[in-house]
Amino acid sequence: MTIRYPNGHAYRAPATSESAHFSNTYTNYGKRGMSLEEALNESNVYYETHGLAVVHKKPTPIRIVKVDYPKRSAAVIKEAYFSTASTTDYNGVYQGRYLDFDAKETRNKTAFPLKNFHQHQIDHFRACTAQGGICFAIIKFVVHQEIYLYRAEDLFTFWDDQATGGRKSIPYTEIAAHGILITPHIQPLIPYLKAVDQLLA
Amino acid sequence: MTIRYPNGHAYRAPATSESAHFSNTYTNYGKRGMSLEEALNESNVYYETHGLAVVHKKPTPIRIVKVDYPKRSAAVIKEAYFSTASTTDYNGVYQGRYLDFDAKETRNKTAFPLKNFHQHQIDHFRACTAQGGICFAIIKFVVHQEIYLYRAEDLFTFWDDQATGGRKSIPYTEIAAHGILITPHIQPLIPYLKAVDQLLA
Repeated sequence: MTIRYPNGHAYRAPATSESAHFSNTYTNYGKRGMSLEEALNESNVYYETHGLAVVHKKPTPIRIVKVDYPKRSAAVIKEAYFSTASTTDYNGVYQGRYLDFDAKETRNKTAFPLKNFHQHQIDHFRACTAQGGICFAIIKFVVHQEIYLYRAEDLFTFWDDQATGGRKSIPYTEIAAHGILITPHIQPLIPYLKAVDQLLA
Repeated sequence: MTIRYPNGHAYRAPATSESAHFSNTYTNYGKRGMSLEEALNESNVYYETHGLAVVHKKPTPIRIVKVDYPKRSAAVIKEAYFSTASTTDYNGVYQGRYLDFDAKETRNKTAFPLKNFHQHQIDHFRACTAQGGICFAIIKFVVHQEIYLYRAEDLFTFWDDQATGGRKSIPYTEIAAHGILITPHIQPLIPYLKAVDQLLA
């Protein structure tokens, strides 16, 4: 059974350390049609196992309404609802620096629609940026099969322009020009820390 | 209805920005019997609102088994289970530094039992510490009505000693001597960043 979020995206159980390791080659990444989120989770397991960074995806926030406590077995949540996160999905620590990012995929060939972000995520990015955190989006153009690290500061410019009649998307050409291309690899699948190094250089 | 986690602790819905503000005075903190978690959540709202830090409690991880999609209304989770977190509960950014901590309360007067921590939380603290993150526990001795910031590095010593026949708890006197006392305040309720400043000084 495929479980879907209210936005229509399929729910996938968080990768465990076992499942995250069973097929982490680039070939399989393509063949299995692994989602960007799955590939990032595997990459984060790789980074942590190798002592390179500690980054985790936050659990999906759930509002729990009813729980049963059967005798001699685990508590069962019987009624709950998806709620809106107040932060972005990923954060962690890399060489003493705070990292904060969100991962987004688009099938659009010519632009990244800004509706992929919510106001509270932008607000969170701004607050973290103000504290000296490294904030960015990892954007995958599915049709081009290209993944970019795009700085939160650049995103803010387009986000703010929307309100004053600006365009509702970021052109692909802008992201290709000012983002940092992340070339998928064998291990880790998405070596985004290389792009972070370029960002910090 | 009080919802309980498998460990018997009551479930509380995450504080919203409205609810987090309605009574944040020290008097009420005591009177209402607010939990350490609630007081920390209010403190984090205060810190973020005032541009001092961005720290959030991670949502409780849930393994979702069954979801209904009623027409014209929100998706309802009909079967789900509490799962074990792979990290500590709180993290965020403060003046460019990565913060990572867990909050624990004990009714024990003479010692903090180490069973309040799990191996994976200690492993996570070690990994974050190795990356240069600031890691600590916020420990409340309920009977003494005292709250301490206790460094993860000090915790590691007692944790490791357990395995070689050492004691299963940290003496209250040790935490009082080497921890940093956090005196509850009006705003924020638990001014733990002052203790972090002492840690970094």
